[in-house]
Formats: sequence, C-alpha cells, structure tokens
Amino acid sequence: MIDRGDLNGKILFDDGEHQFIWLGADSDFRRGVVQTMQYLIVDKGRGWLLDPGGVHLFSRVVASASRYIPMDRIEGIFFSHQDPDVSSGIALWLGVTPAKIYISELWLRFLPHFGIVDGSRVTSIEGLGKGLGLGSGARLSFVPSHFMHSPGAFSLYDERAKILFSGDIGAAVFPDGQEELFIDDFRAALPHLEGFHKRFIASNVVAKRWSEIVGRLEPAMIAPQHGGVYRGQAAKDFLSWLSGLRCGVDLVDELYKS
Amino acid sequence: MIDRGDLNGKILFDDGEHQFIWLGADSDFRRGVVQTMQYLIVDKGRGWLLDPGGVHLFSRVVASASRYIPMDRIEGIFFSHQDPDVSSGIALWLGVTPAKIYISELWLRFLPHFGIVDGSRVTSIEGLGKGLGLGSGARLSFVPSHFMHSPGAFSLYDERAKILFSGDIGAAVFPDGQEELFIDDFRAALPHLEGFHKRFIASNVVAKRWSEIVGRLEPAMIAPQHGGVYRGQAAKDFLSWLSGLRCGVDLVDELYKS
Repeated sequence: MIDRGDLNGKILFDDGEHQFIWLGADSDFRRGVVQTMQYLIVDKGRGWLLDPGGVHLFSRVVASASRYIPMDRIEGIFFSHQDPDVSSGIALWLGVTPAKIYISELWLRFLPHFGIVDGSRVTSIEGLGKGLGLGSGARLSFVPSHFMHSPGAFSLYDERAKILFSGDIGAAVFPDGQEELFIDDFRAALPHLEGFHKRFIASNVVAKRWSEIVGRLEPAMIAPQHGGVYRGQAAKDFLSWLSGLRCGVDLVDELYKS
Repeated sequence: MIDRGDLNGKILFDDGEHQFIWLGADSDFRRGVVQTMQYLIVDKGRGWLLDPGGVHLFSRVVASASRYIPMDRIEGIFFSHQDPDVSSGIALWLGVTPAKIYISELWLRFLPHFGIVDGSRVTSIEGLGKGLGLGSGARLSFVPSHFMHSPGAFSLYDERAKILFSGDIGAAVFPDGQEELFIDDFRAALPHLEGFHKRFIASNVVAKRWSEIVGRLEPAMIAPQHGGVYRGQAAKDFLSWLSGLRCGVDLVDELYKS
C-alpha cells in the first residue's frame, strides 16, 4: 500500500535548488481505467511537468502541482508519446500554464486533434538535440524510446537527480489495494509488468538498445508513467530483464494467428 | 484535385441494400494538421462509422454522415487504433449515436482518458473473433494490423463491398491542392507515402505478414484514414511494395543514433 501521507505527492530528490517530485495518486482508484503517475521537476523556481495526463486527471494534477509551484512558473511540459492517457489534456494545460510542450516530431500534426492547440507552443524534441539546460545548470537529456511502444517516443533523464522518467517503459499494473510507490524487489513486481512489456514493445531490437543506453546513464531511479518507481538494484534488474525480452513482432505468429 | 462535387462525400459501393461511403473532405484544408478521411457503411438502414475522428472534425462528420443515415441508426463505430486523430471524439460520438464502439482490447482502459466514456458501450475486437454479420447478410471481418503502427490495431474488411478500411496503413500526405480521392497510379503516389511507412511501421515482419493476409482477400479498394483510396492495380502494387519494405526497428541505427 502507498502510505496515506504520500497520496498527495512525494519529493524523490531535493538538493535545495532542484527537486524531482512524484505528484501523488488518486485516493479513489477507479476500476477499468489505467492508472497513471505524474511528475514535476522544479529547478530554481521554474517547473517542468512530465506526462501530466488526460482530461479527467487535470483537476487533481493541477491541485497537486500547485502545492509545489505556481502554475505560471511551469515553463515546460514533456510528453513521452501521443497516447490519450499522456496528452489528451493538452488544451487545458496550455490554458493554465505558459508552458511550451515538448514531444516527438512524429506527433506535432496529431496534437490538434485533441482540441484547440497553439502550434507555436509545441516544440519537436528531435529539433532540440540531446537535451537542454535548466536555470541551475542541471540538464535534462532526451533518451530515444521509439517503438517502446510508440513509433515516436522519448524518455527524459534528469542528470542532477539521476532519475529517468521512462514513460510507458517499466509500467506495472498492481492489483487493487496493492499499489506501491517504490519497486525495490524486481522479481516480486515482474508478474505485474511482464505481460504489458511483451505485448506493447515492438521488438527485442529496441528493448535491448534502450536498456544499453539507459544502463550507461546509471540512474538511481527509473520512474514510469504507470506502476511504481524502480530504485537501486531493482532498476538494474529491470534493465537486465528488459534487454533479453522477446516481445512484439518477435512473437508475430501469436499476434497474427489465423 | 478532388472534384468539388465530391467534397461532401462519394459512394464507393452500392448494391441497393449495402453502401460503402467516403464522407468527404474539409473544403478548407488546415495547414499543420494531419488530414483525415472518414467512411460510413450503411447496411439495410443501419450504419457503421470507421475512424470518425477527433473533436475538431466532429461537426463536419456528423453533418456529412447524417445526409446518408440518421444518427440514431448508427449501430457501430470502428476505431482502428487509439491515436487522437482516430478516437478523441469518442465522448461526442457516444452522445449523438446509440452506437457501440469497437477497438482492440489493448486500448479499453485508455479510452476513458479522452473524457466521460460508458465502458458498457465499448467492445474488444479480439473478443468478437474474426468478424460479424450485418442485417443484409454482409460480413465485416477484422484484419490484425498490430504494430502497423499501433501495438493493438485492426483493419476492417467489408466482404460485400470488397473494400478494406486500413486505418493508417497506406496513409499518404499530398501537397496542398494536389489531394486526390483515388490512387490509380501507385508509383506516382509513392513519394507521398514512403517516408511515413518507413518511420511508423514497426518492422518488415508485420508489413509482410499483413500484406499477405490482405492480398488473399483480393480487395477491389484499400481505403486508408489519410490520403487516397487505392483501386484496382494500385491496390495490388501497394501491397507488393509494402511486403518488401524495411521499416521501423529494421532501421534501428537511424532511430537510436547517438
């Protein structure tokens, strides 16, 4: 169970001028709707939101984030990919913050289908190069995550906090009432994440490549959009498992059975 | 150019009790937004909509479809996959029709992130088997299209009309003012579709498999959600080209270049 005291959020890293914050959980988990986790980076009084989510989460996430920073100090919103649970709240977020939106160039022309979107506030991650600097000197770097699952996807590595925001990668779905904020024992969590990764990631070709890139970063935590935050040895064990996973088109006969 | 007389829609097949209808184009193409095509099947006075699209298309598509059938006679809405240009209008469509929604089981728990969605009206395609029958005896069959591009995607084959609705597969983006409803010369269209297919389809493994399955159906037309409708020899030429395409993770070094 997640501690009741953490339901409204928890600071995962803080060195005085730079924080990486988990924005809490729904106190009332809704059956039949995939649960999501949101994160906020605060750096010298400026904020970045990571996959802040769809329209029905908007009010909770605004309320949670605003306890750490005023909405008019949010300067960036990172979308790992185009799925509705990630980005369908885009028009609301553009309204309540002055933020720019960062997403793979593959989805720039798709976002307007969520509603009224000012294209001048949407920036392609590919166009930025490998990352960007924040006010404190901290760096956010973009890790290609294409086909895991979305054809155009990125993870975001906060080098100062040593935390990787991985989007859908590492996503777990725990049984009702058994949600945990941290995953410390990878083997215990595996039954709650194995099926998703086998079915959604396109191929071992990318699972292996991504695991190698992330492994070299030596993240202290891997923080996905669903499930729990991997820490310490569990993060290493997750990468090791993922790099050997047969998934997606590797199992084409199961997918296209006649 | 698309004939002005066709801008409001065109009947692609009609045998008196069964029609397959293209629902027209935006008369004023909007720059920077990927253009979409919608289709309606009418069978003995009952309707099916195919990928009716996002919120900003809703009013045009309702107006167009209602010239062929009243909204309260729409009994099914097929979503090829979960992208915003396909399905972000779901709550509006559930409101204006009594239809059930059909989509891959992978996305059942994601749709509520678009807004208020009554789960009892959403059905998993995998749970239905290979297809279903309509009032006239005509059959719609579901063609697996997983990882082309979405991990959970289907095409829909109308056996009576011999028209395959292929979702994103076959999508083309023509230069402004050069849009065509039909593609009769595949080689002439290729420059407008090659880049998309190389980048979005996960691997030749699925491109080849899908092309073989569809080739055996011998469709008279392949109707995608973007671009133009392939007919006759152009449909065959498209399948032949697609089955040999190296794409997605086959080009991993380009995607994950360091």
